[in-house]
Amino acid sequence: MSILENLNSPAPLKRMSVEELNTLAGELREKLLTVAINNGGHLSSNLGAVELTVALHSVFSSPYDRIIWDVGHQAYAHKLLTGRNKDFDTLREYGGISGFPRRRESEHDSFGAGHASTSISAALGLALADKQAGKRNYTVAVAGDGAFTGGMIYEALNNISGKGVRLIIVLNDNEMSISPSVGGINTYLGRLRTNPRYLGFKYRLKKFFAAIPLVGKPLTKMTRGMKNFFKRLVWRDNMFENLGLHYYGPVDGSDIKRMQGVLRDAMRDKSVSIVHVRTQKGKGFSPAEEQPEKYHGVPKGGEYKSGESFSSVFGDIMARRGGEDKKLYAVTAAMCEGTGLKDFAARYPDRFSDVGIAEEHAMTFCAGLSAGEMHPVFAVYSTFAQRAYDQLIHDVALQGLPLVLALDRAGIVGEDGPTHHGLFDVGFLLQTPSVEVYSPESYEDMRYSMAKGFEFNTLTAVRYPRGGEQSYDRSIYTSADSGNMFYGDFGTDTKVAVISYGRLCGNAVKAAQMLAEKGIGVRVVKILRLKPLNCEELFRLLAPCTFLYFAEEGVRSGGFAERVLATMCEKGQMMGKTAAIRAVEDRFVPHGDTARLFEDCGFLPEQMAAEIESKLR
Amino acid sequence: MSILENLNSPAPLKRMSVEELNTLAGELREKLLTVAINNGGHLSSNLGAVELTVALHSVFSSPYDRIIWDVGHQAYAHKLLTGRNKDFDTLREYGGISGFPRRRESEHDSFGAGHASTSISAALGLALADKQAGKRNYTVAVAGDGAFTGGMIYEALNNISGKGVRLIIVLNDNEMSISPSVGGINTYLGRLRTNPRYLGFKYRLKKFFAAIPLVGKPLTKMTRGMKNFFKRLVWRDNMFENLGLHYYGPVDGSDIKRMQGVLRDAMRDKSVSIVHVRTQKGKGFSPAEEQPEKYHGVPKGGEYKSGESFSSVFGDIMARRGGEDKKLYAVTAAMCEGTGLKDFAARYPDRFSDVGIAEEHAMTFCAGLSAGEMHPVFAVYSTFAQRAYDQLIHDVALQGLPLVLALDRAGIVGEDGPTHHGLFDVGFLLQTPSVEVYSPESYEDMRYSMAKGFEFNTLTAVRYPRGGEQSYDRSIYTSADSGNMFYGDFGTDTKVAVISYGRLCGNAVKAAQMLAEKGIGVRVVKILRLKPLNCEELFRLLAPCTFLYFAEEGVRSGGFAERVLATMCEKGQMMGKTAAIRAVEDRFVPHGDTARLFEDCGFLPEQMAAEIESKLR
Repeated sequence: MSILENLNSPAPLKRMSVEELNTLAGELREKLLTVAINNGGHLSSNLGAVELTVALHSVFSSPYDRIIWDVGHQAYAHKLLTGRNKDFDTLREYGGISGFPRRRESEHDSFGAGHASTSISAALGLALADKQAGKRNYTVAVAGDGAFTGGMIYEALNNISGKGVRLIIVLNDNEMSISPSVGGINTYLGRLRTNPRYLGFKYRLKKFFAAIPLVGKPLTKMTRGMKNFFKRLVWRDNMFENLGLHYYGPVDGSDIKRMQGVLRDAMRDKSVSIVHVRTQKGKGFSPAEEQPEKYHGVPKGGEYKSGESFSSVFGDIMARRGGEDKKLYAVTAAMCEGTGLKDFAARYPDRFSDVGIAEEHAMTFCAGLSAGEMHPVFAVYSTFAQRAYDQLIHDVALQGLPLVLALDRAGIVGEDGPTHHGLFDVGFLLQTPSVEVYSPESYEDMRYSMAKGFEFNTLTAVRYPRGGEQSYDRSIYTSADSGNMFYGDFGTDTKVAVISYGRLCGNAVKAAQMLAEKGIGVRVVKILRLKPLNCEELFRLLAPCTFLYFAEEGVRSGGFAERVLATMCEKGQMMGKTAAIRAVEDRFVPHGDTARLFEDCGFLPEQMAAEIESKLR
Repeated sequence: MSILENLNSPAPLKRMSVEELNTLAGELREKLLTVAINNGGHLSSNLGAVELTVALHSVFSSPYDRIIWDVGHQAYAHKLLTGRNKDFDTLREYGGISGFPRRRESEHDSFGAGHASTSISAALGLALADKQAGKRNYTVAVAGDGAFTGGMIYEALNNISGKGVRLIIVLNDNEMSISPSVGGINTYLGRLRTNPRYLGFKYRLKKFFAAIPLVGKPLTKMTRGMKNFFKRLVWRDNMFENLGLHYYGPVDGSDIKRMQGVLRDAMRDKSVSIVHVRTQKGKGFSPAEEQPEKYHGVPKGGEYKSGESFSSVFGDIMARRGGEDKKLYAVTAAMCEGTGLKDFAARYPDRFSDVGIAEEHAMTFCAGLSAGEMHPVFAVYSTFAQRAYDQLIHDVALQGLPLVLALDRAGIVGEDGPTHHGLFDVGFLLQTPSVEVYSPESYEDMRYSMAKGFEFNTLTAVRYPRGGEQSYDRSIYTSADSGNMFYGDFGTDTKVAVISYGRLCGNAVKAAQMLAEKGIGVRVVKILRLKPLNCEELFRLLAPCTFLYFAEEGVRSGGFAERVLATMCEKGQMMGKTAAIRAVEDRFVPHGDTARLFEDCGFLPEQMAAEIESKLR
């Protein structure tokens, strides 16, 4: 009889023996391995955090105590323990369990996540709010060592002392973020890790001092003096203690009993404490133990499709160009494999930096490289580039520094859901002065766009979707505006224009073909360079059309379509024309299969064809 | 005969005696005091950094060596020493010397600034680029202790080790950022500060070891062992050394000779080093020494105008509401005085946090407070809110957490220039799902907007300009859409509509009055709530008009006007109408007097009137 199957809340864990908890951990591992491989998902981090999760729920009382998961790559066991076991096989499916903590999903998910390094800030807010409300609960933030490469963690740590909150930070240290952790903090954590003596000695000392009865002032003073002396000598200064936290660790993340003990010690500590737990990414699944980066996220069915994608094409372009342009410098924020830069990194290690989960630094670092006349390329997922919005404006664009911003995963990304869709980049890029924006929808477009960027005349953003190019006959296109714009006519008397960019162009063409079959003539205009836009050329292409239909895989507000329509109004180009925009309205797009999400947004060819037809009536 | 007057480059400083350098420092202090008080500007930080600047330029060879100033509040002496003495009385004037480092202004300004905590990232990029180019120069990043409350600094420090660059970080520690520095890092720096023994002892040890001749391996090994032993014992672990940097300090920032010595030691050090310099904000000008926060920035003429401003009205509203709503919690990022929160902070210290220059943390901290059912208000300048763009989307809006975002200094800010104008907020707020956006142009609007925010139903942004409300007769307005929209008619047969929001409404009304006098009837529509927008009501108001003129103190691209025009096209409302948008085109607005910048943007009433008239022809 399975323990997990009978568990509707984490409360019973408090009464279980360590043996039972270990059995439960085994069941959790089996379940999440099966589901993650079947549905796709984050595997390595989740496997590594199973015992830690069990220990946490056996010591704390969720949801009264709040457990906040940084990034959320490690929250599957938490979901299984908090009443979501039965629905867990819907993981990452449309309408199913999210791959990340989500407040709307369970009262046990105190704070949602997806992007890194937010947990301590959120935990501090929640803890203060609870304190104000007179609650006597604990708030626990669980953050991986990768999250400690992000600056927000330090901003939060810097604000933690003196608040009088019951806050415990668990540093889930698997010596990786997504790529192996980089930089000074990792070296430093390494030093702490290899100091097994630290924890034990510290505890013995603590007990010793706790045992001394405090009789009158002189003895207290003496004791305090001794404490400080020993503290300096033995506890050593420690980066976290320098910031006013009490440090506990390192503790073995596979040893539930040990973790329970340390967590209980931290609970008794009146200061904010940091518990350093060493876990192993991929634990219990040997392929993931050996290649944790590869198994960070697994695709549906567990099999990696080899073959081309925009990321791999980008990687090939970079690797080739790196040999030709000795000034080319590639930067990634913990996404070396995901962005396709592995080859470049191996060939030109002197001109490659993985800065950790530190997009802000990455952008300004690129600005510095550019000011020094290097040719920096920052490869980053669209959603994570949001972190460097101010640096893009303030450090790059304002100073007119040329660099290439390679925005991978632009548009809908699928199962990772709303925290990961790249739906805002066109909006914020169009409003940034002096940027050139390309939105390739084919590998050929991709090569063209990167070649433009490689001229390093200005800040150039190339945004491309997750996965590969759509398969359809591109010979239907005629080039306009020197290859920055294309059009193709379907049927005769093209009164309808469909204007699109990026991945939706394929769907636009299919919609046009459907309409043409019904006798409705359609001109498809594909925009490769969104900014600067050759308006005269576009107006010329749209002149014969009376109905303009914009299809945009991004937010409507502040997007490309609004911009074009407003300009057309100003230039008197809308006389006798009507228009409609199909884009992401004022909402967040949920998680699920990309095709299903396209349907959700009305982006399928048949939906677009039907909408156009209805507007013509 | 003045030394400064004969100085066209910093090169001669290398040959000057310490006495001459001290004389020069006195001259610099006098000059910058005169100009800053005359023209307005950042005073306290600049006064404190005079000797440090002299020491830096007497040791390093700018521009071959690169000196990068964080934030740039302390770069006036640097400007005076690098050929800008003659033009310095144009400081912060339109077309004159910028108040911040600026690449286009001088080859000695290696990297521009304005927002905090970017210097080390930029310095690392520049240093790597220079290394790649085979240069043997030094890169020096000068950052205040305030900058160390920002997460980017740690992201950069985390990436610094092992790069083999000649990089020196000067920590200019005046124990303040703008408000007194807050948090753990400040406590920690305090500990370093009060350890006078640290530097001397370390140096003596270093000299001792350097003197031991290295004969053969065994002795070397022995020496290394001794070194490590002493290092552990005496140098102690230090947060910066934990990240792989060599720490020098603290050194007295008024002692040029001492600073020269330490900087030269740092130059000889093959590791990246951090030099901790203790300076005094406002040094040499007693009012600023006593009240450094007040004299952080001084207004033109040196006199503070008392009286109302949007910030003071905001402060009053908050202080009053704090008594009524015990859940109200105010957060600022080092701008307690600037945002008007001093009174609230004094009355409700338990419900106030100044988090340091840490906007990212602030936003997610507010999200945490909101998740815990507090009522958080984050008061931040529009330009600095850009730092928290991702947190706004990912942590607040996506989770549907209600909070009030009070965006001060929205629009053109004047003399601080392009790094500080708040021109992007409408663009990024409109594209954020579920946000309500108010743009008050009067104190009455301000009170109304805040009251809406205080309902804490959703994320509510209230954006308001620097300074006070415009003075004009507001009885001309008729309320529409329950007070979220207003209109006023000028002249008869109002075929022209001027649609505006925020501060430009006053100018729009003046323009309308001018046109009415010429017989052109104008309807002015003032939008208070930009989002959600009651389109039906707006369309009704615009129905009689054939020419729509939008006036928007923000970027055109992705702004309010584009959004409305696109919607009008879709809804068939543009039939028979033409339109024009007056907004900030695809460029950055320079620094200077706000009225002069309004002219630069075509925002003056007479300019708007003339433009409308010309479009009607």
